[in-house]
Amino acid sequence: MKGTSFIGNARGTEGGPRFAVASRTDGQPLEGRFFAASEADVDRAVSLAAEAFRPYRDLPGPVRATFLRAIAEQLEARRETIVPRAMAETALPEARLNGELGRTTGQLRMFASIIEEGSWADMRIDPAQPDRKPAPAPDIRSMLRPLGPVAVFGASNFPLAFSVAGGDTASALAAGCPVVEKAHPAHPGTSELAAEAIVAAANETGMPEGVFSMLFDEGIAVGQKLVKHPGIKAVGFTGSRRGGLALWRLANERPVPIPVYAEMGSINPSVVLPGKLTAAFAEALFASVTLGVGQFCTNPGLVIAIGPNAEFLKAFTEKMASAAACPMLTEAIGATYLQGANAMAAGATALVTPTAPGAPTAFEVDAAAFLRDPRLQEEVFGPSSLIVTCRDEAEAISVIRSLEGQLTGSIHATEEELRGVGALVAELEDKVGRLIVNQFPTGVEVNSSMVHGGPYPATTDARTTSVGGRAILRWVRPVCYQNFPASLLPKELGS
Amino acid sequence: MKGTSFIGNARGTEGGPRFAVASRTDGQPLEGRFFAASEADVDRAVSLAAEAFRPYRDLPGPVRATFLRAIAEQLEARRETIVPRAMAETALPEARLNGELGRTTGQLRMFASIIEEGSWADMRIDPAQPDRKPAPAPDIRSMLRPLGPVAVFGASNFPLAFSVAGGDTASALAAGCPVVEKAHPAHPGTSELAAEAIVAAANETGMPEGVFSMLFDEGIAVGQKLVKHPGIKAVGFTGSRRGGLALWRLANERPVPIPVYAEMGSINPSVVLPGKLTAAFAEALFASVTLGVGQFCTNPGLVIAIGPNAEFLKAFTEKMASAAACPMLTEAIGATYLQGANAMAAGATALVTPTAPGAPTAFEVDAAAFLRDPRLQEEVFGPSSLIVTCRDEAEAISVIRSLEGQLTGSIHATEEELRGVGALVAELEDKVGRLIVNQFPTGVEVNSSMVHGGPYPATTDARTTSVGGRAILRWVRPVCYQNFPASLLPKELGS
Repeated sequence: MKGTSFIGNARGTEGGPRFAVASRTDGQPLEGRFFAASEADVDRAVSLAAEAFRPYRDLPGPVRATFLRAIAEQLEARRETIVPRAMAETALPEARLNGELGRTTGQLRMFASIIEEGSWADMRIDPAQPDRKPAPAPDIRSMLRPLGPVAVFGASNFPLAFSVAGGDTASALAAGCPVVEKAHPAHPGTSELAAEAIVAAANETGMPEGVFSMLFDEGIAVGQKLVKHPGIKAVGFTGSRRGGLALWRLANERPVPIPVYAEMGSINPSVVLPGKLTAAFAEALFASVTLGVGQFCTNPGLVIAIGPNAEFLKAFTEKMASAAACPMLTEAIGATYLQGANAMAAGATALVTPTAPGAPTAFEVDAAAFLRDPRLQEEVFGPSSLIVTCRDEAEAISVIRSLEGQLTGSIHATEEELRGVGALVAELEDKVGRLIVNQFPTGVEVNSSMVHGGPYPATTDARTTSVGGRAILRWVRPVCYQNFPASLLPKELGS
Repeated sequence: MKGTSFIGNARGTEGGPRFAVASRTDGQPLEGRFFAASEADVDRAVSLAAEAFRPYRDLPGPVRATFLRAIAEQLEARRETIVPRAMAETALPEARLNGELGRTTGQLRMFASIIEEGSWADMRIDPAQPDRKPAPAPDIRSMLRPLGPVAVFGASNFPLAFSVAGGDTASALAAGCPVVEKAHPAHPGTSELAAEAIVAAANETGMPEGVFSMLFDEGIAVGQKLVKHPGIKAVGFTGSRRGGLALWRLANERPVPIPVYAEMGSINPSVVLPGKLTAAFAEALFASVTLGVGQFCTNPGLVIAIGPNAEFLKAFTEKMASAAACPMLTEAIGATYLQGANAMAAGATALVTPTAPGAPTAFEVDAAAFLRDPRLQEEVFGPSSLIVTCRDEAEAISVIRSLEGQLTGSIHATEEELRGVGALVAELEDKVGRLIVNQFPTGVEVNSSMVHGGPYPATTDARTTSVGGRAILRWVRPVCYQNFPASLLPKELGS
């Protein structure tokens, strides 16, 4: 571990504030001291990205695809070092991190396929009509073109799939945008290993220097500099609402504002009809709420239960109470979890009271009380869920209407009940990016149709997704070419 | 002329501040007193739009298309009243307004065809894989779904094609979004006639009440209320930078921010290579600069001339000096034009000095002086152009790099010169939404490939266009459906 930032093919300075991390499982110090990027490091990374932009953009899609596929291979070649380091830095289990590495390489390969095929860029051609009356029509062609260098912020809860070589990096590189990554300070060693893989892949496939850089910082100064830098044209972020909104405001205050795609979490309402308020459903819900110590943006944190729910509540309470506390991603996340759960206990009945970071908690409240207290909508990031007891569908609809924007909304109902849920589905659709029937929101498929996004404040931009094939559309704008000779057109638009 | 706002199928109150307009050609008062919408009018219009949203969204594309086609027919049926009223309210000539009406109905029919065909909504289906290892994959489908009710602001310079029944209204209605229009106060009579056409078409084709409303106001209070209203989900605007940025800021300050698509003008740089610095080019440029009294967002207000340009300057000066003053759209626009031209004369050499509103003006400055004075980049809305004299390509590139974002950028060059303009084209592309070779930016084709947009501050969102088939994408977000029974899916995603 060198611990310095990655500035194109070189490494940054050791001068800045330094930090280190300890194992989240045994508390022992982990190898490596990491150095915050200097202002010159940030400038140099963005300058190199700006220089790399045009040559990188102009590479044919299949050539950029070789880079993405090489990153996947370089990551796999480092599996034996990356997975143990990520385990130590996050306390996530080996199987999960092996799976996450597979998801990460799968994402890279999916975007490689998308740019090999090429139609994502929406090429449009209106040929000249020299004989049109009253005036001839010129030849006009357009396509989606990359925005320029983008800043990507790694997330704490997915050290691989939403971090250095994660979804935003993969989709931005696919679109033709160089990436300047801000590594998440909770897993700097994992980040260094992933950055090494990307730089090796860039060199192996002859990409222009600066197509990727990565900056370390334990605090927020480097990220702020990066978002304010005039050379940066868009931002991807996954994390807390406070962090995401701070970056969004900063981007809007720039002399030239830029898009910020911040995914800021969600309580993921699950509407449960009477036929599903059973012990079996309680068990399935428990598995989803506690998966990965509840540390998913898609954790089902709110259950809108319609009708008598004593059997369900009893079973859910028993399951949640029986589960042991698990270490959370960082000490701060653990403390915030306990604080949030205690705040929830002040406004709702605790079915399982908060005891320790990472210990499951559960709460119950009736619809009227929920509607009175907007604080009950605040996300408790971790293994926690709030059950809102509703008398009937009308009350459930009032609860849904009171909600903020969410990533997902689920409906659990028997086959017979499903015939009558049209109104509930329509209400939920107004609030979410992904609607689910009889499944749980945890487990986000990476495929062409996935939408991992949703209305504010789940994200800062509901018109986009951070997962799935459509994510490439975050990083582009349409550009049109009128009366262009073929030699000057982008290759994709040449006749 | 009733002069009250259109609130669904009803009309608004007469209580608010009233205003009237006079003919821009002879100064005589025009028929009609117009009443600013009350707060209750605004609320009612947005409530009706919100109620109309789901039934309207769920209509099949071909059914919404009948509405768009009926609007076109209703407009054509009113040609004999709309065109004369628009002439009187704007001083634009009959041929132009007849053409603009054709463009307006053409836009409506283009979007009708797009939603009849249907692929614009980007339907994606990933079928279930029950046997996938380690876990089965669910059926996931997604498509672009409308955002909800949108606010559209009419523009002063296109009383038909960018106003009540103009591009934003057509694309939003096509996408499935009800529209609440804020009529531009400079042409309220034209707006009333166009609104009548839309309401008649809505009723004729059985659309839900509230799919369209229109609010009058001479000032800005009604527009502000509209943009702040929680029921409004996006905003379309064409006009001044001050107006557009004010709405954008207001939208960002809402408890739930919404997208604002503001097109705020441009000086549309034209780079002219030595071989084109001729008297013939001067004549063609003159025609483009003075077209419609220069009152286009695409007016070529900046000419970056490379090499000796005495012949060109002389011819251009003579043509511009010989043209008479024409009445501008409003008295305020005329006064602002004169003010802007006088400011330009303070920083550049006046080739044709400002004398009156609507009288052409021309200025010249060398590259070094242009680079020193950012005020020379300010748009002078009207028949004016600034020539920047550059010694060579390197100086021209410095000038391009210094520019703000623009709607268009043009290159004028001989066939031989075109072989060497790659670097100039690449520099221009960073700045614009539409690149043009050997043509002028005035005259925006309405077709599938047009991009009428560009980097900030030409617009608030370079990822979109206000003209052309892609404009429908302004008003949508992707929504995904996981494990849905066919009966609950949007029809477009049903198997």
